[in-house]
Amino acid sequence: MYRDRIRHGGLRDKIITAEEAASFIRDGMTVGMSGFTRAGEAKAVPMALAARAQTDPLQITLLTGASLGNDLDKTLAEAHVLKRRMPFQSDPGLRKSINAGEVMFVDQHLSQTVEMLRTHQLPPVDIAIVEAAAITEEGGIVPTTSVGNSASFAILAPKVIVEINLTQPLLLEGIHDIYIPTRRPHRDPIPVVAPHSRAGLPYIPIPPEKIAGIVITEKLDSSARISPPDDGTRAIAGHLIDLLHHEVKQGRMGTDLRPLQAGIGSVANAVLHGLISSPFHDLTMYSEVLQDSTFDLFDSGKLLFASGSSITLSREKHDEVIANIGAYKPKLLLRPQEISNHPEVVRRLGVLCINTALEFDIYGNVNSTHVGGTQMMNGIGGSGDFARNGFLSIFVTKSIAKEGKVSSVVPMVSHVDHTEHDVGILITEQGLADLRGLAPRERAKLIIENCAHPDYRDRLADYYERAVSRGGHTPHVIEEALSWHRALAETGTMQSGAD
Amino acid sequence: MYRDRIRHGGLRDKIITAEEAASFIRDGMTVGMSGFTRAGEAKAVPMALAARAQTDPLQITLLTGASLGNDLDKTLAEAHVLKRRMPFQSDPGLRKSINAGEVMFVDQHLSQTVEMLRTHQLPPVDIAIVEAAAITEEGGIVPTTSVGNSASFAILAPKVIVEINLTQPLLLEGIHDIYIPTRRPHRDPIPVVAPHSRAGLPYIPIPPEKIAGIVITEKLDSSARISPPDDGTRAIAGHLIDLLHHEVKQGRMGTDLRPLQAGIGSVANAVLHGLISSPFHDLTMYSEVLQDSTFDLFDSGKLLFASGSSITLSREKHDEVIANIGAYKPKLLLRPQEISNHPEVVRRLGVLCINTALEFDIYGNVNSTHVGGTQMMNGIGGSGDFARNGFLSIFVTKSIAKEGKVSSVVPMVSHVDHTEHDVGILITEQGLADLRGLAPRERAKLIIENCAHPDYRDRLADYYERAVSRGGHTPHVIEEALSWHRALAETGTMQSGAD
Repeated sequence: MYRDRIRHGGLRDKIITAEEAASFIRDGMTVGMSGFTRAGEAKAVPMALAARAQTDPLQITLLTGASLGNDLDKTLAEAHVLKRRMPFQSDPGLRKSINAGEVMFVDQHLSQTVEMLRTHQLPPVDIAIVEAAAITEEGGIVPTTSVGNSASFAILAPKVIVEINLTQPLLLEGIHDIYIPTRRPHRDPIPVVAPHSRAGLPYIPIPPEKIAGIVITEKLDSSARISPPDDGTRAIAGHLIDLLHHEVKQGRMGTDLRPLQAGIGSVANAVLHGLISSPFHDLTMYSEVLQDSTFDLFDSGKLLFASGSSITLSREKHDEVIANIGAYKPKLLLRPQEISNHPEVVRRLGVLCINTALEFDIYGNVNSTHVGGTQMMNGIGGSGDFARNGFLSIFVTKSIAKEGKVSSVVPMVSHVDHTEHDVGILITEQGLADLRGLAPRERAKLIIENCAHPDYRDRLADYYERAVSRGGHTPHVIEEALSWHRALAETGTMQSGAD
Repeated sequence: MYRDRIRHGGLRDKIITAEEAASFIRDGMTVGMSGFTRAGEAKAVPMALAARAQTDPLQITLLTGASLGNDLDKTLAEAHVLKRRMPFQSDPGLRKSINAGEVMFVDQHLSQTVEMLRTHQLPPVDIAIVEAAAITEEGGIVPTTSVGNSASFAILAPKVIVEINLTQPLLLEGIHDIYIPTRRPHRDPIPVVAPHSRAGLPYIPIPPEKIAGIVITEKLDSSARISPPDDGTRAIAGHLIDLLHHEVKQGRMGTDLRPLQAGIGSVANAVLHGLISSPFHDLTMYSEVLQDSTFDLFDSGKLLFASGSSITLSREKHDEVIANIGAYKPKLLLRPQEISNHPEVVRRLGVLCINTALEFDIYGNVNSTHVGGTQMMNGIGGSGDFARNGFLSIFVTKSIAKEGKVSSVVPMVSHVDHTEHDVGILITEQGLADLRGLAPRERAKLIIENCAHPDYRDRLADYYERAVSRGGHTPHVIEEALSWHRALAETGTMQSGAD
């Protein structure tokens, strides 16, 4: 049974139930689990763990690649299994527990978690649970639709549980490139010099005796939750395409642009879609998550190669891609997130980085995580890895939210994830502010004029003028700087104004 | 004349006066000048330029490595020569002009300026002015006490002026390692795998015909402005040494620690001094600026090798080092700041990074630049290059300033240069907060208890409790978050309290 999926003969008698596997997990343990942007997460064992906690309460520290699908984070949070969670999540249920202070959430740059594990700066992973398409003859683990942190979790943990997911096509084998940086202080340069560079193995190499159990599953990845492009996101995409034309004209890049990175979500997806009808061609991607737009770009003939750490698709696109996976395979690589997001590689390749802001301020500081400065949305994810190190750092957002009650452009952001030093271009549906080489006072004028919604523009200009009258490199009316957020908290809208 | 200093025969007739050289600079030009942490800056030509501006007003964009000595920034600002200045400064006179909005200051990560120049994302350098100890037979420029951005300025500019400084010892030749990353998209890994790795040439290679003039100078570098260790900085050093013992005990590093980086200033200098009497040995440095403490560590036998981008010393230490430069030389390398600060190398080597905060908040966000959120002090410098990418990011500051009127620990920083994601350890004379792997609520308790001054601790704890009662991942009383800064602005002290 499962001879094609479990090719190491000695491991076939390790098949156990999810419940048996979950019983290996004890209260207080640190568990490292596969899963990145709702792709390739272990599915059966965490569900069994949540079920078990109903009668046998326990709490763990859960590390993953990034967000999980199949409502796993919600289910685990509701079962009170999560004591500590890192480095990213995007689940409304878990979010509630985090903001209530019930789950200690550690929001990290996605490239850094395993670096900290490897150097014992985080508690060691007691057990790794990794979804796989297959186990090779040697006992190597072939991941599925994501790599995330799975490789290092499996390598560092003393005990590994493998979930063989029969719905994940065996043709995924060969799509992964598992390279782990050598140990410091004698670390070699990471041998990735192009999006298509292959540096490692197509499987996670671990001693087969570490595999404590194999669970067979048949649950699909969750589908991507992407809204289709609308007028706003199309306008943002249009401004971005204009910018790229300008960059090519200025001789800063060729018509093949630079390797592209796009954050997850509808805006970034719409922006990539905008490239399909652009004159740019021979494109490449060096990104975290490969969404529908990546495959649409392949289909349009615009995209030559895409490197990522996961594939997260809508249901329709998923079926289409899986049916043709053999054709896409030579143009795809999935890497550990430490490598897909590594500052060394991102800067070497000169990646063009497009990430989504929750809000930004008139000086170009970006908040990508905290609503009202206090409530965690998802986490910083890989945006910092890319924005700091890329060729050009672009942040996009619609200029207003909540039917206009919230302005995404504010006097001062209520939380900073990306400082003005790491923000080159800001785009809303209103327009684009090119901040490169500008001082804060110059940035403010551009941002207010080009990016703010007309309903808020005059109040921002008024704030800025009064701030400038007080002087300073980054002028502020300090007692009023967060008054828009105060108004939002107290009255539910920024519109009434608190100035 | 000057045969030992100008060894390329054809260049000896290029000797001109500083006034003649300054006349090459025209209104509106972008000038790239040597100089990093008050070391190795061009001295005569900028002075002549400031003098000329008295009768012949002109304005330029001035790029340097980092800060300049000899009151140059002050003199240029007072002569209204500076329209735009980047990427760093530390001059009280220029600071005044920046905060008045007269000089547009662009505060950048020090590793990034030449990357932006090279890709035409900043206006091109029209003329480079570089201090040199000598010009080689081939016309290569041998820098003096700093490399900074000099190499790329000279390589990218169509015209170069060289200031041969006769007070800079010829023995400096051989101390520099000029490596320039290859052009993207086909960039090779940077071949620096240890602090002592030599990757390039001992001079800046440019075609000699680009040298438009050579000016002979005899002005010394300015001395470092370092206060001697006091009780506060000694206590900070003590906490840091305790931490290092703990790290060694935990198996996170050996007794040779990790390559050390320390920001400029009295606190960082005191911290490095603290290592002299520690049991750690066979140390290395991979830093920006090498201060007195580097040479004291050499003299104590603790330090094996130091890589930096400049040498900035007190007068006494300067005389001592220069007198023995031959003995220190095999243990020293000066690199372009793009390489000394490069994310790729900093992360590969796993640098232990110690930088100074102006203030930090109860969640671990750090402000290193803006007094009261508006007034620029110096700039972010290289702190972001190191803090983001090192093995461990440590920020140090005294818990209070201005005789206790200012708390360095605040509810919310008034400006963010380093987000909580990039801050591992906070140290004041009161104690140390180890923030690794902790959620914001956990961080707050540690920071308040361990780092805040007793005079402010209760008020911080009270703020935190009221914030928590409102909930959130990063709890805040948003309308009060900046009230300490408001009180400071309005009453001159945070003591009276605004809560």
